[in-house]
Amino acid sequence: MSQGKFVYFFGGGSAEGKAEMKDTLGGKGANLAEMTNLGIPVPPGFTISTDACELYYENNKAYPEYIVKEVEQHLKKLEAQMEMKLGDHDNPLLVSVRSGAAVSMPGMMDTVLNLGLNEKAVEGLAARSGNERFAWDAYRRFIQMFGDVVKGVPHHAFEGALESIKMEKNVENDNELDADDLKKVVSRYLSVYKDAVKEPFPQDPKVQLWAAIDAVFGSWKNERADKYRAINKIEGLKGTAVNVQSMVFGNFGETSGTGVCFSRDPSTGENYFYGEYLMNAQGEDVVAGIRTPEKLSTLQEGSPAVYAQLVEIKDKLENHYKDMQDMEFTIQDGKLYILQTRNGKRTGQAAVQIAVDLVKEKMIDKKEAIMRVAPAQLDQLLHPMIDPSVMKEIQPIAKGLNASPGAACGKIVFTAEDAEAWFLKGEQVILVRKETSPEDIGGMNVAQGILTSTGGMTSHAAVVARGMGTPCVAGCKELIINQENKTMSVGSKVFKEGNWCSLDGTDGLVYEGAIDLIQPELSGNLNEFLTWADDIRNSAKREGVADGFGIRANADLPVDALKGREFGAEGIGLCRTEHMFFDEEKLKSFRIMIVADSKERRVESLKKIMPLQTEDFEGIFRAMDGLPVNIRLLDPPLHEFVPRSKRDIAELADIIGISKEDLQVRLNSLEEQNPMLGHRGCRLGITYPEIYDMQVEAIARAAVKVQKEGIKVLPEIMIPLIGTYKEFIPLRENAEKILKSVFEETGITVEYQIGTMIEIPRAALTAEDIAKYADYFSFGTNDLTQMTFGYSRDDVGTFVPEYVNKKILKADPFQTLDQHGVGLLVELGVQRGRSTKANLKTSICGEHGGDPDSIDFCYRAGLNVVSCSPYRVPIARLAAAQAVIRN
Amino acid sequence: MSQGKFVYFFGGGSAEGKAEMKDTLGGKGANLAEMTNLGIPVPPGFTISTDACELYYENNKAYPEYIVKEVEQHLKKLEAQMEMKLGDHDNPLLVSVRSGAAVSMPGMMDTVLNLGLNEKAVEGLAARSGNERFAWDAYRRFIQMFGDVVKGVPHHAFEGALESIKMEKNVENDNELDADDLKKVVSRYLSVYKDAVKEPFPQDPKVQLWAAIDAVFGSWKNERADKYRAINKIEGLKGTAVNVQSMVFGNFGETSGTGVCFSRDPSTGENYFYGEYLMNAQGEDVVAGIRTPEKLSTLQEGSPAVYAQLVEIKDKLENHYKDMQDMEFTIQDGKLYILQTRNGKRTGQAAVQIAVDLVKEKMIDKKEAIMRVAPAQLDQLLHPMIDPSVMKEIQPIAKGLNASPGAACGKIVFTAEDAEAWFLKGEQVILVRKETSPEDIGGMNVAQGILTSTGGMTSHAAVVARGMGTPCVAGCKELIINQENKTMSVGSKVFKEGNWCSLDGTDGLVYEGAIDLIQPELSGNLNEFLTWADDIRNSAKREGVADGFGIRANADLPVDALKGREFGAEGIGLCRTEHMFFDEEKLKSFRIMIVADSKERRVESLKKIMPLQTEDFEGIFRAMDGLPVNIRLLDPPLHEFVPRSKRDIAELADIIGISKEDLQVRLNSLEEQNPMLGHRGCRLGITYPEIYDMQVEAIARAAVKVQKEGIKVLPEIMIPLIGTYKEFIPLRENAEKILKSVFEETGITVEYQIGTMIEIPRAALTAEDIAKYADYFSFGTNDLTQMTFGYSRDDVGTFVPEYVNKKILKADPFQTLDQHGVGLLVELGVQRGRSTKANLKTSICGEHGGDPDSIDFCYRAGLNVVSCSPYRVPIARLAAAQAVIRN
Repeated sequence: MSQGKFVYFFGGGSAEGKAEMKDTLGGKGANLAEMTNLGIPVPPGFTISTDACELYYENNKAYPEYIVKEVEQHLKKLEAQMEMKLGDHDNPLLVSVRSGAAVSMPGMMDTVLNLGLNEKAVEGLAARSGNERFAWDAYRRFIQMFGDVVKGVPHHAFEGALESIKMEKNVENDNELDADDLKKVVSRYLSVYKDAVKEPFPQDPKVQLWAAIDAVFGSWKNERADKYRAINKIEGLKGTAVNVQSMVFGNFGETSGTGVCFSRDPSTGENYFYGEYLMNAQGEDVVAGIRTPEKLSTLQEGSPAVYAQLVEIKDKLENHYKDMQDMEFTIQDGKLYILQTRNGKRTGQAAVQIAVDLVKEKMIDKKEAIMRVAPAQLDQLLHPMIDPSVMKEIQPIAKGLNASPGAACGKIVFTAEDAEAWFLKGEQVILVRKETSPEDIGGMNVAQGILTSTGGMTSHAAVVARGMGTPCVAGCKELIINQENKTMSVGSKVFKEGNWCSLDGTDGLVYEGAIDLIQPELSGNLNEFLTWADDIRNSAKREGVADGFGIRANADLPVDALKGREFGAEGIGLCRTEHMFFDEEKLKSFRIMIVADSKERRVESLKKIMPLQTEDFEGIFRAMDGLPVNIRLLDPPLHEFVPRSKRDIAELADIIGISKEDLQVRLNSLEEQNPMLGHRGCRLGITYPEIYDMQVEAIARAAVKVQKEGIKVLPEIMIPLIGTYKEFIPLRENAEKILKSVFEETGITVEYQIGTMIEIPRAALTAEDIAKYADYFSFGTNDLTQMTFGYSRDDVGTFVPEYVNKKILKADPFQTLDQHGVGLLVELGVQRGRSTKANLKTSICGEHGGDPDSIDFCYRAGLNVVSCSPYRVPIARLAAAQAVIRN
Repeated sequence: MSQGKFVYFFGGGSAEGKAEMKDTLGGKGANLAEMTNLGIPVPPGFTISTDACELYYENNKAYPEYIVKEVEQHLKKLEAQMEMKLGDHDNPLLVSVRSGAAVSMPGMMDTVLNLGLNEKAVEGLAARSGNERFAWDAYRRFIQMFGDVVKGVPHHAFEGALESIKMEKNVENDNELDADDLKKVVSRYLSVYKDAVKEPFPQDPKVQLWAAIDAVFGSWKNERADKYRAINKIEGLKGTAVNVQSMVFGNFGETSGTGVCFSRDPSTGENYFYGEYLMNAQGEDVVAGIRTPEKLSTLQEGSPAVYAQLVEIKDKLENHYKDMQDMEFTIQDGKLYILQTRNGKRTGQAAVQIAVDLVKEKMIDKKEAIMRVAPAQLDQLLHPMIDPSVMKEIQPIAKGLNASPGAACGKIVFTAEDAEAWFLKGEQVILVRKETSPEDIGGMNVAQGILTSTGGMTSHAAVVARGMGTPCVAGCKELIINQENKTMSVGSKVFKEGNWCSLDGTDGLVYEGAIDLIQPELSGNLNEFLTWADDIRNSAKREGVADGFGIRANADLPVDALKGREFGAEGIGLCRTEHMFFDEEKLKSFRIMIVADSKERRVESLKKIMPLQTEDFEGIFRAMDGLPVNIRLLDPPLHEFVPRSKRDIAELADIIGISKEDLQVRLNSLEEQNPMLGHRGCRLGITYPEIYDMQVEAIARAAVKVQKEGIKVLPEIMIPLIGTYKEFIPLRENAEKILKSVFEETGITVEYQIGTMIEIPRAALTAEDIAKYADYFSFGTNDLTQMTFGYSRDDVGTFVPEYVNKKILKADPFQTLDQHGVGLLVELGVQRGRSTKANLKTSICGEHGGDPDSIDFCYRAGLNVVSCSPYRVPIARLAAAQAVIRN
């Protein structure tokens, strides 16, 4: 029975593999094969496939006989081609044994170099290279690496042995040891090895080879690698491949060397051949940083022929792979070898620059360019960040959640009121709270950054900060905040009010003191790039869905609306009216309304709010001239607005003329056991119709006024938290009555739509009924996720991190839409809605609207529009275009 | 064009209608027609159909010409048959105009009697009857009734006129007025009428007739009728019919009379001819209660021929309708007329008795008998109730929600501790609380009844009380409870600790003092009847579903398990383990566990609980010998168990040896913003595996021990709150590991199953995955309803009553399953679950398991079992049998 092929040879100008075989050969193996076929000088070798790795694990960490045979056949072929033999006394073949999975996992798995050396072969190597010191140094390194990687001999045991020789010789550096010293080192290393492993160092190179292959396969499932795959969501791989490759040496002498180069600048994207190298050195020397590497220009001067060959290879590879290449090369005795090439990692800025340049160089088309940039990479371009040159010199004092990207620095304050007061005095502040609440909005708005000690990625602080584009580190558990004394401590370090601190919301880090920030610019390239994305997005065609795929911004204030528009939003997808109530004047009237004991009193208080609310809407309508604005009527439970401080309660009691105690009773009656599932959203609209009436009137009056100014106003009124169409009908009727009366009174009519959020599971399940009455649906996936999972996003901190850790959840469902469960409800909602209204407009306006995977899902689910925070609009534009291309 | 037929004649031994035409003729009209066709003496007349009523409303409260014509043709036919004429001077025809819908709505709509009288006809009536006083009295009554019903003339206006004549004549009673006096009354009435209506009383009988028909049709949509239909969930009717029928008079003299009779006793069901009548009286006199009616036996003595005829008719009608009949009769001048017959309303006891008797008399078959008893009627038979003879004499002091049926009386106490203390002293107590919490369990358990001032039908008090079968009036808002002073007041009335009070949980009423209760017995009839229901239920056949339809009880304690078994439960459908933690000893250890700061400490505390928990399970297993017991592992959030009183906190701090302040910090960290959506159920099982480990070990040890006693133990272990199969897998693995180790240790193996609750929407949506690993599903429709609607059952009191009132919701979804929304999830869960496990056992264990409509839904949805509180098991058995017959 044929078991298939498990080992693939490369060398002598041809290879059995190719670049497309990454799944089987791993990235490194596939590229080594591809380069060999391209005629690029690659030291010959062979790749043991990922299938063998899978089999190794299935087979209880052993190899079937046929794999052993296949490896040995390929080893023979390699020896024949190299005209050398593993372990040979005269002409020993040395090989490297390296890991290489289909997805790059740098540094996570094991490598063994210089394999094949033993007491005989080391002599052969010395003779052949004419460099005894080199040979014994290589043997020493091999024993140490093999001992460490394959047998787990502690590093310090070898270091101790080396140190003892250096002390005996009274020298400081390794390179001061000569061949004889190194022979002694080897001898001591062999003892160290034997003591630790309880058996002598294997002299048989085959034994060495199989042990090394074992170690590499074994490293696929080491803790480090498992964690790396979990963090980077790498799934579905069969395992790692093992590359057994003949060694070339950059430390053969002064005509040898080794280096790394990029075909373009990985940090700016500039089309400039960028690299570093060291003569007479091995790769590990470059990494160890003992010597400072040279720039490639030095190579050009010193070895113009080698440099020219390198440039030629670079061009060939970039042209072949049609992407920026990251290459490793070694020069042995003046002869150039390429040991690795891969598509180079790059910054967001470089990613965009390279993608745009490659299109202009006609190497790739626009679609390909769009697919080349990961949406998350754009995030870096849209926020201030800590000056990278400073970054190297400082250490964070604490780490929390990277709740809202960007960096900030300012003076620490502990209350929202202080933040506002200090801001008015011209100070930059960082607002530090255990957690924030809607009352803190004013302070959050003026703070440079927000830091909390509790709460998750969707805590109030995090959500609001992302919406505002304010950097935020949330849930930083190491902080102990004492609100009363106005201190914050980390370990023994205590910060007082007014002390400087800095935040990096992109990585969730907190720094002491004020740190220099840089303000990245939106380059012209990015604009051009996003225009291509828009073209693709706007030409999207799906069966049963209107053409295109829209992007809107969530914005509650004119300034945010403008920001969204500037970043390319095609309308406001969610304008939350509740945030508007948090300025002092409105809040006061709103609180009087909340505790009023009669409809008349409520109406009276609401009348005072109306003109102010009207102004809010006017500003947004003006900002969005010609673009639709989707306004959500009041959503949260009333108690979110109730005063909590003694002062505020006393003041309110005073205004309405009752005792503080009586007021407290009314306030208590607003408390709910599970406010998220309580009296909120349209439920308030039904029981207190006067609230929505006021809001609709404010919308109508603002729309009429702004339209009179010659501005095109397209209001959409969204009723939240609908669970049955029977809630929607009377609320729509009420709203239309008011709109009509304002239009009649003013003689001006404005086009409008009235839609609903689908955020209650029951709404999705009965969408066919609701669609009969609603002009559009917007999926509120935050609440939909809460209720579909039964997770309160305020409380999941106690178990969701553990769930993600244990892989019970792939990801926090508040960050990435749960496509299987919540997604099914979205799909049902769309299908059922369109079953009674074929062209029903559907959109998403939860936090997920800015998440690339979720955007892809929304496209597949047939949604017309996604909406996200203004600062994520460029990311969403790119992700949406990718979704269109992908599907 | 033919518009169809709208008017149906009956009289002269034949009728155009029949009993099956209720939808068209209303119940009364259809039965009048049927009786006419049966040869029973019915005064002739005609019925204007419900179609005409529908048309009347569609036609803006007017009649098309063809209906007017049809009515007048039938009137002529009636006049011809009666040889009388409406308004005739010599021989005037008098008619009654009565409503009659397809479903009986007693007293909700209008009636006009004696129609056709005017100044001429009254003379004719006087002459024909030879009784001038009778004629003028009839005219007086007619003017008053017409004025009141048709024109809305206030009752007191006529009363005043009558009183003035009585005062002028200086008499007290109406019957002291003679013909001349009544003529004066008529004259005054006509003035009253003219003053109020602004036009004279219509003398044209046709005008009278059409106005009366208008009034009856109009009364179909009066407020009273609307409300009645809403309360009784009467839907889908076209309208009322109008019956125009020639009048007969029971007040013609001493050979005349009128009465009501039942073919069997409506309160006991005994086969005994039961009725009351009055000689020389009209129906309204019987109702007014001025004279005491006679028993039928008196009629038998006084008018044996008439009585014999009545018995003959009664037998004929009962045989014809095959059900107990409620009849109205009038004797005019010794001649018997039947004015109405219908299936009589009856008590639950009578319903069962009659159904069983009719089967034994071979009038109906068992299926028909099963359909004859409304499941809700059984409720009366299963709880103590207030002695009906006492009921008439007392007035409730307050009304709340009928949260748990049955009556109770006892001395008022205000804390659970007091309840327990007083109980130990031999007192009967009523526990009065604003609301109860799990800590009150002990007190609730010993209380005769529970009374709360807040909370709804699914509040803690209500749910627990129903589970215990303890009467409960919840959410009684009129009560002001002062826990500190231990007083309760209603208006100005103040009750202190130790005062007696009584509750009627069936109707939600509160009484002052101790009231006599009667303990109803489960009659042999009921047992027999339910056995028939079981036979039907057990033989249920559905495609793709195992045969039969099981009933289980929810029970947490052996005593409840026994009660369930006694009432016919075929197993325990839900045994909640959390209630078991509320006895003092376990609670103490559990609290130590909750606040422990290490796994070791938690395990230590759990070890102390285990033997106690094992005993709980042993008791239940013994009680349910041979029947399955489904045990749910810990479900609620931990903070439900934390101590709240200062004393308890101090005590706990003492035990674990930390300061009260430090303990408070730990307790606070357990608080959640939305505990219903927080860290609970299997989420605790994942993060603190030691808790479920302890519970599973207790189940295993109890099962082994009891099985050793020769008892058949069938444990089912249910993991709550699963949202993804990835939660279920490790929890199942853990449980099986522990079961295996106990079985190995003891050498005894017990059959078991491990299943899950489906109560998170996501679980239903992804049931195909979960079914791969779970042995069974039990739908927890309480939580499923909470999350599908986004309603916290603790908080819905603020809007759900208003929603039901405004018909936004048909019913409180926590009482009756929302079949459209939540039901869709149940159906999806069953279908998806069975898509990967064809024979997956499914059941329901929420509060809905005892609701007849929901049981019908569960049957249709393909569930195998419903489970409900022990006290509702008989109701569920009946409802389940009806579901099988119906579908």
